[in-house]
Amino acid sequence: MSFERVAIIGLGLIGGSIGLAVAEHLPGIATTGFDADPAVRRRAAERRLAGTICETAAEAVSKADLVILCVPVGAMGEVARQIAGELAPGALVSDVGSSKRGITRALTEALPDRPIIPAHPVAGTEHSGPDAGFATLFHHRWCILTPPAGADPVLVANLAEFWRALGAMVEVMDAEHHDLVLAVTSHIPHLIAYTIVGTASDLEEVTRSEVIKYSAGGFRDFTRIAASDPTMWRDVFLNNRDAVLEMLDRFLTDLEGVREAIMASDGEAMFDLFTRTRAIRRGIIELGQDDARPDFGRADHGA
Amino acid sequence: MSFERVAIIGLGLIGGSIGLAVAEHLPGIATTGFDADPAVRRRAAERRLAGTICETAAEAVSKADLVILCVPVGAMGEVARQIAGELAPGALVSDVGSSKRGITRALTEALPDRPIIPAHPVAGTEHSGPDAGFATLFHHRWCILTPPAGADPVLVANLAEFWRALGAMVEVMDAEHHDLVLAVTSHIPHLIAYTIVGTASDLEEVTRSEVIKYSAGGFRDFTRIAASDPTMWRDVFLNNRDAVLEMLDRFLTDLEGVREAIMASDGEAMFDLFTRTRAIRRGIIELGQDDARPDFGRADHGA
Repeated sequence: MSFERVAIIGLGLIGGSIGLAVAEHLPGIATTGFDADPAVRRRAAERRLAGTICETAAEAVSKADLVILCVPVGAMGEVARQIAGELAPGALVSDVGSSKRGITRALTEALPDRPIIPAHPVAGTEHSGPDAGFATLFHHRWCILTPPAGADPVLVANLAEFWRALGAMVEVMDAEHHDLVLAVTSHIPHLIAYTIVGTASDLEEVTRSEVIKYSAGGFRDFTRIAASDPTMWRDVFLNNRDAVLEMLDRFLTDLEGVREAIMASDGEAMFDLFTRTRAIRRGIIELGQDDARPDFGRADHGA
Repeated sequence: MSFERVAIIGLGLIGGSIGLAVAEHLPGIATTGFDADPAVRRRAAERRLAGTICETAAEAVSKADLVILCVPVGAMGEVARQIAGELAPGALVSDVGSSKRGITRALTEALPDRPIIPAHPVAGTEHSGPDAGFATLFHHRWCILTPPAGADPVLVANLAEFWRALGAMVEVMDAEHHDLVLAVTSHIPHLIAYTIVGTASDLEEVTRSEVIKYSAGGFRDFTRIAASDPTMWRDVFLNNRDAVLEMLDRFLTDLEGVREAIMASDGEAMFDLFTRTRAIRRGIIELGQDDARPDFGRADHGA
């Protein structure tokens, strides 16, 4: 492994999981961790999310050869400026954010002449904070690296090797394409889930209690996604605006088509769509990207 | 228990689960089952989805004091006409369909002067067919009864007792309100899921392979819902058109509001929505209507 000391800035779900995964899979690597919130630092120390929990970001990064920023997308630039003067010579700076064009710009501006390779592990749960992380979060999940033009291929290979050691599969693409792909596979699904849960909360004819009671008809799945961290997701939509709006407009066009099929009682059009969509599910199951058991194997029957 | 012989017409996920649940919880009740598909009847016999699998619907219902129609919503009327002349005197006819106004009309027309109490167990998985059912499907799930005006309260109580014996909780409401409630907790979520999976399948800039690989960002949850039975769902949208369109328009209005917040970079509006939606999730978990573990307790890490 090319890295000996890894600094993790931000000790929530992803940062904490990286720390635990390094301890599990790469015990030879020393980790330092920092979080701006003292309560998170205390809990991180109790859970041993990093080998050393530091009181300042400067202290955490000072000897690291790999620094991973695990803060909300909107905070990346500011954190990068804070550590700019403290980085060791040659230290590689990376991150885990869900939108890559904006982050690349922010890191490049804050850290000119530093090696930067943004990354995005496509993994997570609806929980957040220092209690949410676990060592196997990245197992069999993709981690996307988006090296800027002119990035050192050796550093790209080193970072890929690091993520593979944590159990992830690695893919390399440019930041613009990443942002378009994730808009459809992650950002729009979250946006839709937040919106429909909001719609259901605000109805006058149907009470909240009814929405909750009869949620097993499909709605409850959306509430899980809509329970994700609000700060993280606000920043994603602010930072991946163009791709999100582009994909949202595609979705709205298709939804208008389905609406017209319902209005016209066009059962054939509906049946055709509802049949086509099964192929994607099969692909996801075959690739091991979801639990094949009914209802994700949820243990709620007889709860 | 007021019923001695229960006939189940249609042996897919719900019909099969009723048969298995009766065998488990009400072993004193004899069950007969019928399905229009001979292959389903054979598989139903192997899995013992009913005590006796009959070759005709007439044979299945002839001695039953409770007949439960478990066929797609659009087939209810036709099946009711087929059994109209075969029902035992006083037999109660019920169903399990997801929209209640249209079904009530279809059953009342096909079976004038028969006691009819429509029902809807709000339970299911994305799987369908005779292999999908299991005895605990209704445990801790609500079953909604929608007795028509003038229904015999004793029969309503008897049917409620039956569903409670299978592990369900029972609620009574009118068909119109049911259709509005389920439009938001079940029908619109399915419509949205089918649509976004269709949108993602048809993109030119993002390949299907990419959609599948990076689906763990949220999209894969929608693909599970969009893998539900196409015939069942086509019929739901054809039969609950008004309520679905009404709720769809509310959702579209809210989605337009979120779209405008993104265009205006209004982080505060987004943060507010993303925070409010967590309360509904908490209510669902507290009421035991979903698995509280992260990611539904999915066992896909390290798969």
